[in-house]
Amino acid sequence: MHSIPEEIETPAILIERDILHRNIERMASRVRERGLTLRPHVKTHKIPQIAALQLEAGAVGLTVATIGEAEVFADHGATDLFIAYPLWLSAAKAERLRALSQRARIAFGTDSVEAVREAGRLLGPAAADFGVLVEIDSGHHRSGVRPEDAAAIADAARAAGFRVAGVFTFPGHSYAPGMPGTAVDQEGAALDRAAVALREAGHDVEVLSGGSTPTALLTGDSVATELRPGVYVFGDAQQLELGRCAPEDVSLTVAATVVSRHEGSGDLPRRIVLDAGSKMLGGDRPAWASGFARVQEEPDARVSALSEHHATVLWPEDAPLPALGSRLRLIPNHVCVAVNLVDEVTVVSDGAVVERWEIAARGRNA
Amino acid sequence: MHSIPEEIETPAILIERDILHRNIERMASRVRERGLTLRPHVKTHKIPQIAALQLEAGAVGLTVATIGEAEVFADHGATDLFIAYPLWLSAAKAERLRALSQRARIAFGTDSVEAVREAGRLLGPAAADFGVLVEIDSGHHRSGVRPEDAAAIADAARAAGFRVAGVFTFPGHSYAPGMPGTAVDQEGAALDRAAVALREAGHDVEVLSGGSTPTALLTGDSVATELRPGVYVFGDAQQLELGRCAPEDVSLTVAATVVSRHEGSGDLPRRIVLDAGSKMLGGDRPAWASGFARVQEEPDARVSALSEHHATVLWPEDAPLPALGSRLRLIPNHVCVAVNLVDEVTVVSDGAVVERWEIAARGRNA
Repeated sequence: MHSIPEEIETPAILIERDILHRNIERMASRVRERGLTLRPHVKTHKIPQIAALQLEAGAVGLTVATIGEAEVFADHGATDLFIAYPLWLSAAKAERLRALSQRARIAFGTDSVEAVREAGRLLGPAAADFGVLVEIDSGHHRSGVRPEDAAAIADAARAAGFRVAGVFTFPGHSYAPGMPGTAVDQEGAALDRAAVALREAGHDVEVLSGGSTPTALLTGDSVATELRPGVYVFGDAQQLELGRCAPEDVSLTVAATVVSRHEGSGDLPRRIVLDAGSKMLGGDRPAWASGFARVQEEPDARVSALSEHHATVLWPEDAPLPALGSRLRLIPNHVCVAVNLVDEVTVVSDGAVVERWEIAARGRNA
Repeated sequence: MHSIPEEIETPAILIERDILHRNIERMASRVRERGLTLRPHVKTHKIPQIAALQLEAGAVGLTVATIGEAEVFADHGATDLFIAYPLWLSAAKAERLRALSQRARIAFGTDSVEAVREAGRLLGPAAADFGVLVEIDSGHHRSGVRPEDAAAIADAARAAGFRVAGVFTFPGHSYAPGMPGTAVDQEGAALDRAAVALREAGHDVEVLSGGSTPTALLTGDSVATELRPGVYVFGDAQQLELGRCAPEDVSLTVAATVVSRHEGSGDLPRRIVLDAGSKMLGGDRPAWASGFARVQEEPDARVSALSEHHATVLWPEDAPLPALGSRLRLIPNHVCVAVNLVDEVTVVSDGAVVERWEIAARGRNA
């Protein structure tokens, strides 16, 4: 592990370029080997330079979460975008979608007859320019309908003038210990049932889109034709603790300085405090996680609390407590929300700064 | 409750101007009635227009968390700033502090002899331009030393050329059910012990600074001279569930649209999904909270899960499920992290948009 370049002022997000490249290549080649297409979710990084690397490695297009993200990546040359979200259009959003479709191939998600009818009403004849994928619920119980109910929505999409491209699902219930294997099998079964239902109703099913970083490299029973992982480019503490990435695969860390240090005694815990809190790392902390982040230099340390600008770290009793002013790297629990908190990241290689990238799509929630 | 103005595209943060003004006035008058000074923490809002209202209402100055926040508020005319954080200076940060001290009265926190010595070394004779407050631990066990250990740090600060202004503490352990009363008493006891220790060592103790929104309006045993609440301007779901603000005191909400709707059956929960997730609301979710946010229109609804762009809301069985496309207001659990996610907020009054404010200090983590 290289030390943090001296010129870095903390807190700051660092990206190890060589690990990033390796992660991108590995996912691309494994998905290709299985004969699937890769449409990585760029909400993770929101950085056009990384999207360009993903496309060069063979991604067929990009997945985004919002119209705003689609606009940013189209501004940077993306020509094939899937908004993997059950959009409810306003007149203003319909107008933005229409403008987007002039410069990129756009598909979006839906999980109701009402939403697709409203979209058709607002887009009018322009509906023909858009692909629609019906969202199905493969066990996460967020958005998405039962596979058997997808055909009625596809019928409504066709009636509203859209091109029905297929179905998609997000197996978000893979984010728990022991669950990735189960989730990928449920994803496969759900996509299969939806495909049968759609074909019986006379729809072509070009795309069966699934996948998340915890499940993308599992073969399982999935019948997906396309995968949409996002986190794999960086890795994070959730993926580490789920066993879905190795410590040496983590390409993004938060450089932080020890600002407070306490040997502890009595009811006072032995701890250090780092100058990166929830406004750098994000506040995500699933019940099964060992803490609010991980310390790259000390796997047995535990981030026991996160304030906005403080990470409180309980240090193992048998390891010397780091000195005040020393610098460590934190691995966020959920990297997608960490990147969204800063305006730029610093790219490093062999311990030296090589580039700075703007988070071009930061905050594009609408 | 006014409806969400039609021109608002979701998700978006709305601030009710009249409630905001009332919250600012109430805290200012209650603190004044107790003969204390108010130095509100502006990390909550990061908005110069709100800081101006707080100063007009009688605040003696502002509290910030970082040098970057201090710079933004100084740019907007603030002249008295306390960085309530145990700074560890680099050469670059020392230079920024020095520049700041040319245009505002600056004090900062410390909790170690090492940090204050390093600051003195880097600032040189300019140290005399800064006040230092020693941070003590009143029960939160984050940063801060035992009250009895404050004198040695004050001695080191004086030796390094700083003006010792007093002590400060953050009773963060007030953020739990039943804890605000206990925390305010422990805060008072700790400040008192630190003041005794400092005076015995020959230091003037001008400022005993404490307070947080959960404790600021409790009289308790506090001997504080100054309070630093932040959240009170907006309120949030944490304060509601701690009983520290009333529903009608919440001035900030996230306008969101129902994008997915499921009556539920079998193992599928009855729910709606709103288009505001952790990238709008923040991911903070203490174990004692009832969910990841609250729905202003339906107190019995529960936000059971938060993805980046989805809030999954379990709706009470005896209430009709809102229609697709309808718009609701979410109350974030922790408002400070929600505001930090957007570039601007929309100010409303009587159901109409009256202003838009930039989050000038968003993302100023360093």
